[in-house]
This record gives sequence, C-alpha cells and structure tokens, in this order.
Amino acid sequence: MKLLTPGPVTTRPEVKAAMAQDIAPWDNDFRPIYENVRSRLLKIAGGTLDTHVALALQGCGHFAMEAAIRTFIPAGGKILIPLVGSYADRMAHLAKDAGRVPVPLRVDQERPVPPSAIAHALADDLTISHVGLVYSETGSGVVHDPATIGAAVRAAGRRLLVDAVSAFGALPLDVSRQPELEAVMFTSNKCLEAMPGLGFTVARTKSLVAAKGNAGSWSFDFADIFEHTMRPDGSGSFRFTPPAQVLSAVNTALDLFDAEGGQQARLGRYRQNADVLYEGVVALGLDPYLAYDVQGPIIVNVAAPDDPAWNLQTFVDLLKVNGWLISNFYNTARPSFRVGCIGAITPNDMRSFLKAVETALTTMGISNRRACRAVA
Amino acid sequence: MKLLTPGPVTTRPEVKAAMAQDIAPWDNDFRPIYENVRSRLLKIAGGTLDTHVALALQGCGHFAMEAAIRTFIPAGGKILIPLVGSYADRMAHLAKDAGRVPVPLRVDQERPVPPSAIAHALADDLTISHVGLVYSETGSGVVHDPATIGAAVRAAGRRLLVDAVSAFGALPLDVSRQPELEAVMFTSNKCLEAMPGLGFTVARTKSLVAAKGNAGSWSFDFADIFEHTMRPDGSGSFRFTPPAQVLSAVNTALDLFDAEGGQQARLGRYRQNADVLYEGVVALGLDPYLAYDVQGPIIVNVAAPDDPAWNLQTFVDLLKVNGWLISNFYNTARPSFRVGCIGAITPNDMRSFLKAVETALTTMGISNRRACRAVA
Repeated sequence: MKLLTPGPVTTRPEVKAAMAQDIAPWDNDFRPIYENVRSRLLKIAGGTLDTHVALALQGCGHFAMEAAIRTFIPAGGKILIPLVGSYADRMAHLAKDAGRVPVPLRVDQERPVPPSAIAHALADDLTISHVGLVYSETGSGVVHDPATIGAAVRAAGRRLLVDAVSAFGALPLDVSRQPELEAVMFTSNKCLEAMPGLGFTVARTKSLVAAKGNAGSWSFDFADIFEHTMRPDGSGSFRFTPPAQVLSAVNTALDLFDAEGGQQARLGRYRQNADVLYEGVVALGLDPYLAYDVQGPIIVNVAAPDDPAWNLQTFVDLLKVNGWLISNFYNTARPSFRVGCIGAITPNDMRSFLKAVETALTTMGISNRRACRAVA
Repeated sequence: MKLLTPGPVTTRPEVKAAMAQDIAPWDNDFRPIYENVRSRLLKIAGGTLDTHVALALQGCGHFAMEAAIRTFIPAGGKILIPLVGSYADRMAHLAKDAGRVPVPLRVDQERPVPPSAIAHALADDLTISHVGLVYSETGSGVVHDPATIGAAVRAAGRRLLVDAVSAFGALPLDVSRQPELEAVMFTSNKCLEAMPGLGFTVARTKSLVAAKGNAGSWSFDFADIFEHTMRPDGSGSFRFTPPAQVLSAVNTALDLFDAEGGQQARLGRYRQNADVLYEGVVALGLDPYLAYDVQGPIIVNVAAPDDPAWNLQTFVDLLKVNGWLISNFYNTARPSFRVGCIGAITPNDMRSFLKAVETALTTMGISNRRACRAVA
C-alpha cells in the first residue's frame, strides 16, 4: 500500500526498519543521534549555530505551532493570520485558545498571499507584533512565499512565524536571510519522509532567550526546551520521554535526503510528481482544482466530477484495492479529492496511480468528469 | 540490548514489528484500531462506556498530565500535590506554568502517603478542589494507594487526578469504585510494554462534559478531544496527526497483555522480577534504597556503594557491555542506581542482570558495597 494522503507519507524500508528497535532515550549512544538530527535540520533551514537552533517537541505539527505562538508572543499579543485555508484557521484557533489575539486577514485562498495585503494590514494595526504564515497550505495545495511576505513584515518592523509543516525539506528556506523570521515549525512525517510523532522548530537564539517566561505552559515552552537542550555541561536532551524510534527514523530519513541530493533534488522530484499528476488528470478529462500557475508541488487537489455517480469514499475504496491511499474527506471549498505528491514516491508511481484513477472512475460509471462547481 | 531504564521498556518482537509500517491514520481500516485500543484501555481501568471514556493524546505522559490539569481544574484553581518525588514535583511545575495553583504537601518520600495527611490538608484549605497523586513514583519506586487516598478525597468532597504513568496495566485500578477519581493518566511505553509517543487518559464522561472551556489550550483540551472522538456521525478520531505506528504497537502490546493473563498476571511477573532483584542485590552485599515493606514492584533503587571507586556512568557502561541498559542519572535524595522491573523481562532476565552487576562491581574494584549515606 502506498500513501498519497499527503502525510503521513510513504517511507523507505530503511526508515521503517529504524522504528523497530528498543531505544533508551537518555543512553549516551542515543544522545548523538538527537544532536545529529538537530544540526542537520538547522543546516536545511539555512541556519548556523551562531544565530539559530533546531529543537524538537513530542507530538505533532499543531503542538509545535502552539508552542511557538506561546513562546514568541506574550499573552494578549496579536498575530495577523492570512486565512489561506484550513491550516491557517487552525493556527488562529491555537492562538485564540492560548490567550493570544489572532487577527484574521481574508484573502483569495486560490492565489498566493500578496505581500501588499500584509503591509496594509500591519499599517492599519500597529499593535500587531507577529504574522503567522502557512508556507504550503495542506488543504488547497497553494504555496505562499515566506521570503516576499517576510520582506513586508520586516519593512513594518514586525516578526514572522512560519508553519512549514508540509514544506520543510522540499520548499526553499534560508532563515539566515530573513531576520524577521523568528521561528519555522515542521514535522517528521511530511517532506522529510519519516514517521509521525515529532514536531520541530528552527528558531532564532536571541528570540528564544528573550521569550523566557512567555509560554504559560511548561510542556509548550520552546524557551525552556532551548535552555534544557543547551545545558552547558552537555547533559541536555529531551525534558520528557521522546518517541525515540521516531527520532531514529528521522535520522535515517535524513541520510536518504542527503543521498538524494538535498532540498533541491527533493523539490525536483516532487515537482515532477505533481506535474505528471496534473497533466495526467487533465488527460483523463478531470479538472484540477487550481490553475497550473498557482499549483504547488506538494498537494494536488482535483475537482470532484459533477456526476451523480460520484462518491468520495467509494472512489477512495476503489483506489485502495489497487494499492493507493488518498484522503477520504474534503479539504476545499468546492468538493475535490486530494493527492499528495510527497513521500518516497516517483513520477512512475504517479503514472500507476493515474491508471488506478481511470479504473476507479470507469468502475463507478462516472460519465461526466468535469468539475462540480457546487460548494462542498 | 535489554532496557531496565525503566521506561521506555524492552518490548516484544511483535510490538517492534508493528512500528515498521506506513499507516494513514484516517484510513477506514485504521480507525477501528484506535477504537479497539480505547475500549481495551477503558476495560483495564475498570471503566464502562456509560460513565468513562479512554482518550489518547500525542506526545508523552507529561503532556497528558498537563492536559488533565488544564481540562479538569479551571484557571486559578488549586490542586493539592503530595510531594512524593520527582514526578510529583513535575506535576506541580506543570500546574503552576498552566496558571493553576499547586499546593505542595511535604511527605516522607520513602513511605506511602498516609490518607490522614491528605484529609488534614484538605480540611485546612477548603478552596482546594483537586488532589494530584502519583501512583508509582518512578523516581523512588514507592507505590502510593489511589484507593485509600481517594477515600480521603471523596470524604472531603474533592476530586482526584492520578498520574499512573509507571503503574497502569500492572498495578490494580478500578475507576468504577472511585467516583472522586476524575481522570487517570498514563503512557504507551511503561507497563503496557509498547513504544513511547502517546499519552492516555481514562476519565469520567460527566467531568469531561462539565470541563468544556477550561483548558486555555486547544492542543491540551481533553474536553475537546472527547467531543471530537465521540462525534455522533462516527467520524471521530484524532484531531491532529497521531503517531499511528505507536498506536498500532499499543494494540499489538494489548494482545500480548491479554495473552499473559491481564493486569494480575503482569503484576505477578513484575513482583517476581522485583523480588529476585531485591534479594539478589542483598545477596551481593548491596543495600536496597527502600525497606522491603515499601518496595513497589515497578522500580528498585539500589544505594550507591560508599566506595571511592564508585562511578555511576562507569557502572552503567560496564552493564551495557553485557547487554543491560539502566538509567545513568540519580533520581533519589541519596545516590542510587535505578533498575526497572517492567517490560518484556522475566525473573531469569533479572538473574542474568545480577551476574552483570557482580561483574561490573568487581571490574570497578568496589570493595565496600554498603550504602553511601551522603546526599546525591
């Protein structure tokens, strides 16, 4: 079975094997693995030890986002969140429940956020300290640009938090060129092609030091995690029991990432996957959800056919019979099915998947494959 | 290599194998596994679907404890915490940072907490709503009794939260007989003999319904997790990506738990492990840290020998050469080494371990094996 869910993703056998061992997380032989993972993630983000640090948090991407919001924004502080899709909505929910004030910014969810919209919103409210941007919207598949958005944030003298959950490792990032970027958050189980169970941040060291006492949660305090990790006696590690197998699998996945040629090579493969898929669904008479010029390489949504025989769960089940798993729920305003282009998946896999799509549509008796324009 | 760390524990090959697969957590074939785990955990706790529910949280035991404190105690509320050891200290830290008021109660850490001490403390401060008890102190190895402490809490009209992280699955528990017990928290990687990455609660349904809006954290809101899990349309599952491999491993570990004969059989094996270890270290001329009558079956601490050749890390490294991993840091007021009696470990394993201890002590040239009485 191959996963195009998108994330958790299909992993390589070496990654799965790394999960199948007993590990004592505080053993002296395991500590260097955590150190190694942290230093490799820092490098992928473009950071150096002088200015940035990579830290891990047990759990998932949402936990890392809540921890970042708590750590970098004091209680009652305001964060501007362009509402690019469901993951931006979730960021606002996390901020609100944590006692911060999300300032929602309505945007066209099918286009990248224009930096001018951010500039205007920040000029309108001088009490906003932060902007929260989703790099790759895992709902829509649109990629938003932290570099140009960041320039607008920087020009306004504010700071940026980036949800890079479905971007990190594939989409470009250079924290060293973005002084306004306080922290970027991501997980183990998307473009890093490892297993779920860990969230990460790459954050500015100065910001972490300044953030001490903000969090209002011991568990979700990146400033405390930073202090604990960087203990001068070298004893630093996780504060609480980590999913050590997941961390070991990340280390193995980073070996494979390096062997592939790093971020650019991975992005190249994902872009190919997305292109083969995009062209393939067009050839099948289906309508991609997004125009090609705004189609990111991570997730491709395909409009649900406007046919009475269409049923998402039936379609998902028929694909599964042929060895393919996609999400069985809607993520977009108009109904669509979502396909991940990430994970240990090649363009040839995408061609096989397209055959399974054709088979499923035929089996279902879908005669009209054009887009359903109704709201989901 | 066998782990006596104590937790993460040594697991069976079947549990490790369950970790080595790609899983889509929202797939219809995976949902029943989560349902199954929840219903089995509920049964182990003595709960029924009429009154209680088992819920999972990504992360670790501390996260589950913070979530319980936030969910069941409103901001500013008071929780009495008998300071039985390092995990009670941590509970107080979690409560304080979350904006609740921990009321510490000094107790003799080498004896079970007397219910009368709880009764007195609750009588002294009528504004305390909750008591937080560590069932098995993973630092000292002393077991505290939630039934008799609970009776004192019940008599005072207050409520009880139990940290059963190193107890659940081995030590007896019957939530149906303790109406004051609002929630018990535990993890995947101790007496359940599975892998780290998940925290759990078994909680009273009525309490969860009443707790809506308390948490001040979306991630750590068991009331929201409850609502999401119990969606009437049956679509309920995790809110955020779970470590699905860890959950699958828990399910496999529960098969092995049932095959062994459940909680009583598991406790019997652990008690045997602890007894063989306790008698064995005495036979080696070492001093157990606790008197036998208060020695729990989960963790046995052994006093560090009062000998200049003693060095914990050297001792740990020598044991490791022979295939045994124990903790390499001190957990007790006077220095001791800590040995877990839990995990896929038998009394025969303990006998092999004792031989490795003898070899290590001889190699180190320890001539005086009696207890060091200095403070660590």
